[in-house]
Amino acid sequence: MSVSLKLTPQEEISADIPIDLEKTRQPQYGRYLDELDPGQVFEHPRGYTFDTTNMLDFARTYMQANPLYLNAQYARAHGFADLLASPQMVFNVTLSLGVQNDSEKAIANLGYYQVQFIRAVYPGDTLRAFTKVLERRDRGPDKPGITRIRTVSVNQNDEVVLQYERKIMVAWRGDRLPTTPAPDVTVDFPGEDAPEVQLPLTDGHFAPGLTGPNTYFEDYNPGDIIVHANGRTITEEHMALTYLVGNSHPLHFDRIFSSGLSGKMSGEPIVYGGLVFAWLDGLASRDVSEHAVWELGFTEGYHTQPAFAGDTVGALSRILAVEDVPGVEGYGIVTMQLIGVKNISAAAALEKHGADLFIKEDTKRGLGKDKITDKIFEIERRLLIKRRPR
Amino acid sequence: MSVSLKLTPQEEISADIPIDLEKTRQPQYGRYLDELDPGQVFEHPRGYTFDTTNMLDFARTYMQANPLYLNAQYARAHGFADLLASPQMVFNVTLSLGVQNDSEKAIANLGYYQVQFIRAVYPGDTLRAFTKVLERRDRGPDKPGITRIRTVSVNQNDEVVLQYERKIMVAWRGDRLPTTPAPDVTVDFPGEDAPEVQLPLTDGHFAPGLTGPNTYFEDYNPGDIIVHANGRTITEEHMALTYLVGNSHPLHFDRIFSSGLSGKMSGEPIVYGGLVFAWLDGLASRDVSEHAVWELGFTEGYHTQPAFAGDTVGALSRILAVEDVPGVEGYGIVTMQLIGVKNISAAAALEKHGADLFIKEDTKRGLGKDKITDKIFEIERRLLIKRRPR
Amino acid sequence: MSVSLKLTPQEEISADIPIDLEKTRQPQYGRYLDELDPGQVFEHPRGYTFDTTNMLDFARTYMQANPLYLNAQYARAHGFADLLASPQMVFNVTLSLGVQNDSEKAIANLGYYQVQFIRAVYPGDTLRAFTKVLERRDRGPDKPGITRIRTVSVNQNDEVVLQYERKIMVAWRGDRLPTTPAPDVTVDFPGEDAPEVQLPLTDGHFAPGLTGPNTYFEDYNPGDIIVHANGRTITEEHMALTYLVGNSHPLHFDRIFSSGLSGKMSGEPIVYGGLVFAWLDGLASRDVSEHAVWELGFTEGYHTQPAFAGDTVGALSRILAVEDVPGVEGYGIVTMQLIGVKNISAAAALEKHGADLFIKEDTKRGLGKDKITDKIFEIERRLLIKRRPR
Repeated sequence: MSVSLKLTPQEEISADIPIDLEKTRQPQYGRYLDELDPGQVFEHPRGYTFDTTNMLDFARTYMQANPLYLNAQYARAHGFADLLASPQMVFNVTLSLGVQNDSEKAIANLGYYQVQFIRAVYPGDTLRAFTKVLERRDRGPDKPGITRIRTVSVNQNDEVVLQYERKIMVAWRGDRLPTTPAPDVTVDFPGEDAPEVQLPLTDGHFAPGLTGPNTYFEDYNPGDIIVHANGRTITEEHMALTYLVGNSHPLHFDRIFSSGLSGKMSGEPIVYGGLVFAWLDGLASRDVSEHAVWELGFTEGYHTQPAFAGDTVGALSRILAVEDVPGVEGYGIVTMQLIGVKNISAAAALEKHGADLFIKEDTKRGLGKDKITDKIFEIERRLLIKRRPR
Repeated sequence: MSVSLKLTPQEEISADIPIDLEKTRQPQYGRYLDELDPGQVFEHPRGYTFDTTNMLDFARTYMQANPLYLNAQYARAHGFADLLASPQMVFNVTLSLGVQNDSEKAIANLGYYQVQFIRAVYPGDTLRAFTKVLERRDRGPDKPGITRIRTVSVNQNDEVVLQYERKIMVAWRGDRLPTTPAPDVTVDFPGEDAPEVQLPLTDGHFAPGLTGPNTYFEDYNPGDIIVHANGRTITEEHMALTYLVGNSHPLHFDRIFSSGLSGKMSGEPIVYGGLVFAWLDGLASRDVSEHAVWELGFTEGYHTQPAFAGDTVGALSRILAVEDVPGVEGYGIVTMQLIGVKNISAAAALEKHGADLFIKEDTKRGLGKDKITDKIFEIERRLLIKRRPR
Repeated sequence: MSVSLKLTPQEEISADIPIDLEKTRQPQYGRYLDELDPGQVFEHPRGYTFDTTNMLDFARTYMQANPLYLNAQYARAHGFADLLASPQMVFNVTLSLGVQNDSEKAIANLGYYQVQFIRAVYPGDTLRAFTKVLERRDRGPDKPGITRIRTVSVNQNDEVVLQYERKIMVAWRGDRLPTTPAPDVTVDFPGEDAPEVQLPLTDGHFAPGLTGPNTYFEDYNPGDIIVHANGRTITEEHMALTYLVGNSHPLHFDRIFSSGLSGKMSGEPIVYGGLVFAWLDGLASRDVSEHAVWELGFTEGYHTQPAFAGDTVGALSRILAVEDVPGVEGYGIVTMQLIGVKNISAAAALEKHGADLFIKEDTKRGLGKDKITDKIFEIERRLLIKRRPR
């Protein structure tokens, strides 16, 4: 069907339409705890098209050093169809696609779990996302509850790209305005229980001069602590960057909203945690993931303090395990912790806090230790890393 | 012709060339009132190439919720050839293409009228723009006058994409430096008097889960007032964003220029109004234009207060009219007002000012009312919106 | 080879891995003076893929007026294969590709010399870079020395795109942490001694209305001083922009690092000089390089003062020479000085400092003159510029 419309001069009509304040509505997005039933499945709005420059811009803004995300020639020489979207971009976009429905009313994002990267994202791909409510913890009618959700993104061929779980703290609706209902569609949840990653890796050892000599699988041993030299000062750029990945929570870009909150979150817009994580990952990348050919997953990820414009973040990694992959030559799996600090260099934070930096903050009280307020983030991650070419 | 040049070492020569201050020139751009003759036609410099990422970035930066501008798969499923440039981007670029010639010397942009969107802009398209001077209002030799101009953008096939009129306040040249003359070329003005929009819409109702359940044509009724929940804090990003759409007026990015002005505009660089409009439109989009398949036009658009870095803007819409389109099933036309406020939430502004928010500021004096200084923008717009699929 | 991996739930293991601070390492990047031997050749990490939008964004952010970098239709009509990357982008990227190896430990960038643009960069091209150490000046064991290096970028076909020299001030390592060794690969240095530029220029005079009437070869005469009207306020955007071109020196984006320095560089992050140069070039472009079809080269480029977020920069040009090109009709070569100032308009700086603005700062002392602290940059550049079409 082709629609044809003649455009005639547009008459001004507002003065002729009576103004009736009774006809006001205030659409609200996100869900309150009462609106998140275990088993419920939501399809998320919009979708997100990836393109070469937005992939390159993301990798560069967040300081990635792995050429797979920066250099299309290098990515192709490794067997990939084209430049790869960085795992951080895929994760940030997938999480953000779910915000308008899942968490725009959330009080806090409590943690990331079982993040699994299943398929490569290339220029031209479009992702959509779905969320299933896994669990709801009621802590009484006067208290916000905790919900655990699983979000999955799929590409334009309906193939699963990423899946992960997170816990969010959400209040009961009470007498607040109702939220916009989800579209009335039956949605099959595309999550996979035992996903299999297929990587089209080639044997070629492309351009050894393009990457460092000390970041191959053999260079990591359990217990190694790696202090990443540079930090990054986060500026007010974070407000625009939040919407650039598709996150619609006003806490991150609406100062009227932020300053109207009470308690710890009140004041300046808080940097969306996904961006903080992306910078920490990037700061670490030239030391630990330059030769990674796949990010297998993250778990137990916690933002232990918020970050604001003006804060400078730094990162440390600690190697937890190294494993051969049966039947796969040329690559091995490295599991590591990634720790973020702010307004102190990573080296100074290690000197000041020592081993305590690597202890999970929510276990500190049980160990009779104080929380470290310089610390902003902790997570465990697993990477498939190239062995040193012979 | 192929030109071949040998590059030899470049000798330093500046010390040998006498410095003669008599040979100084200071090229000036824009036009003074004396240089804008009714009937005159200008072709504008540069042109502007659209590409997938810059279209996506614009839509995301300005918070669009309509997947036609965010999701190439969705746009194609609706019959479009590819991802669509958002109307706000097309409008901002067209206006900006004209600034260096038309308004770089302007004191104020007084209003937008009869903005008509005529053709889709796709990745790879290049726009050029032309302006015809329609009218010049002389208010005496000591006072700036007002000129009404019509600007049109065309694509690489010389097809008209957008046309609009605006009024600008411009001073007489007096003893100021002369401006750079326009290129000495005869230009046919490509504006159309009764343009026809051809939309390649398909019947398919793609992915109802990707958009909200309450934003179809049937969901709007004359008189409805819709308060958009989120605001956006504008940061110093606006200076870079101004040039990114091609606007060269120093008022928006040159603090030396801005602080050298006298009166109301003196001080920090003012946010280019087109960007403010784009954010307001984006803030409103998930409530009113998520299912729009075409922006038909705007008129009577006024920036009633300037915005600066640090300001937080919010938006409200009021439905003015709904119309069937003869011969076109599946879509209807909605006319609405878009109102912008700053440094107050949209909900609080409505509570504070009530019906007066929707009354045009320049009619307030005649009605014995005060202007609303919280209010920054007002316009009427017409959209072709999808009916709810059955 | 295709690698297949089953993703199983990721167990949390960090608490089980003993924390041993003895196993800490702090990888350092860049080179100390002792690590830069004349004759040594380095291949640089990562590479950089160019794409249509990142090329357009660069040209627009830095305010280019030459449509070759803004308008793909115009570039093709001139005989080029597609939109051209602006010379400033190619220069900034090439320099930045070398930073992690060459200058991340540098104290100061002392100057640019013999910058030669040899081949066009188009969307889809990937650049890699190489550096050869040319010279090392030892100024005693307690003092930083000066090294002169030559950096070359090549495209995916190993064709040289750009080469240039710079001098950097670097300290001896002393008891500082060792830096990461370069990859152990034998690298042939791709620099060319007498490079030849091949330009596929066509005779067509495309769209004379798209460019100004006064910026053809004939419009420039030796001695002409051109004051560029607009300035640009640099915001904290510069931190993100630094990494966007690939520059990893923490001086430009890590406030903890910057404020930990002693002396003149201590305090806020300093704007990466390449970005300052790009803005100055852009501010000048509509007056001097709008009709340039090739940037032949730069030399004697000095950042005479640093710039910080909040500074407003302005530019002046002075024509030094005009030359016919034997055998090439339609184009001529113009050599000019480009001068940058900050926190004063270009016009006011000329009024205040007169001829002294165009005298190289490092010759001022010999001439019994004071340095101009308003001045931030000086360079000589050569351009191939179109003659006025008849």
